[in-house]
Amino acid sequence: MVATSRCEVRTTGQGDVRDISAEVAAAVARSGLSSGVVTVAVVGSTASITTIEHEPGAVADLGTALERLAPRDGKYRHHERWGDDNGSSHVRAAILGPSVTLPFTDGQVDLGTWQQIVLAEFDTRPRTRSVVVRMLGD
Amino acid sequence: MVATSRCEVRTTGQGDVRDISAEVAAAVARSGLSSGVVTVAVVGSTASITTIEHEPGAVADLGTALERLAPRDGKYRHHERWGDDNGSSHVRAAILGPSVTLPFTDGQVDLGTWQQIVLAEFDTRPRTRSVVVRMLGD
Amino acid sequence: MVATSRCEVRTTGQGDVRDISAEVAAAVARSGLSSGVVTVAVVGSTASITTIEHEPGAVADLGTALERLAPRDGKYRHHERWGDDNGSSHVRAAILGPSVTLPFTDGQVDLGTWQQIVLAEFDTRPRTRSVVVRMLGD
Repeated sequence: MVATSRCEVRTTGQGDVRDISAEVAAAVARSGLSSGVVTVAVVGSTASITTIEHEPGAVADLGTALERLAPRDGKYRHHERWGDDNGSSHVRAAILGPSVTLPFTDGQVDLGTWQQIVLAEFDTRPRTRSVVVRMLGD
Repeated sequence: MVATSRCEVRTTGQGDVRDISAEVAAAVARSGLSSGVVTVAVVGSTASITTIEHEPGAVADLGTALERLAPRDGKYRHHERWGDDNGSSHVRAAILGPSVTLPFTDGQVDLGTWQQIVLAEFDTRPRTRSVVVRMLGD
Repeated sequence: MVATSRCEVRTTGQGDVRDISAEVAAAVARSGLSSGVVTVAVVGSTASITTIEHEPGAVADLGTALERLAPRDGKYRHHERWGDDNGSSHVRAAILGPSVTLPFTDGQVDLGTWQQIVLAEFDTRPRTRSVVVRMLGD
């Protein structure tokens, strides 16, 4: 059995990390499925889906580490080619990946108490993101 | 068809990388499924699942790179808020992700000879981790 | 319903990032499935699958960031143990992961216009890579 939900998420730009756990939980509940997997994917190459404890400190710390890895104001070949300013966004998104797949059991996603599913915006401007929530199971 | 196994993994804390390939292989075999995908997920926001050649050198090298990215004794906003000392754990886990999904064929996970499925512990203290192994297929 | 395609991808070594979106799209089309998920996985512990805008600038920028994280000519314990020179490959592959799972809808993978599915080669020599494309859905 296959079920799908979609949601749109407005972000303020790089460093905005949005908790979408409630949307995913609602999608799983609506599907009527008991046991299976849910794939949560963001469309586009400058944002990612992952899990984190969604509190402002941990979110800021993630941003600090990613700034070390791919500084926003660094030199990027992507900028030279396209006149863009979001080379850091592409690099961060490629490393974190566009999706996460998690099991659900008895209609509930198998997450820890302090673990949220998040959309991490890496683009340098506000975006409206399309998220696909696809469930497979019984 | 949906099948599930669970296992508990005791870890010694940050840097402990446990090979759980045998547990996953056994789960796939027990399921009786021939062809499908297996999602291996750790519950919680301070550990990850990935694949690596599970030998002490490569495991230590991964730790060295992650220490560069998110130093254990660095300054973390998460620490200030909660009095915790595991900001580096949250950052590392968010970047590597909580799960891996792999195909299996003829009842065997499609892995290379030197490629193991591992639980990477990032928390700063020993933990007992719950791992969910969920299979879908024919 | 389960469907599978496989493809071989020849790479030139570390930093070669190959666009395999067309192969994945063809696999989904051939499966006859309309809605589901596709898992794309590379066999082996020194390459990864992710998505990126596949243009030479962004690909070079990803390489630059990964060189910062795990320098090719750095010191690796993996080298001391095995006489290998690909410690950086193992570290990069473990961080990016061996697979990506994405939804497809009406027979098309849910990707952005500028988002391609890629095999990122991290090994220090040319390789011929086996990629498994596994689809589940209706």
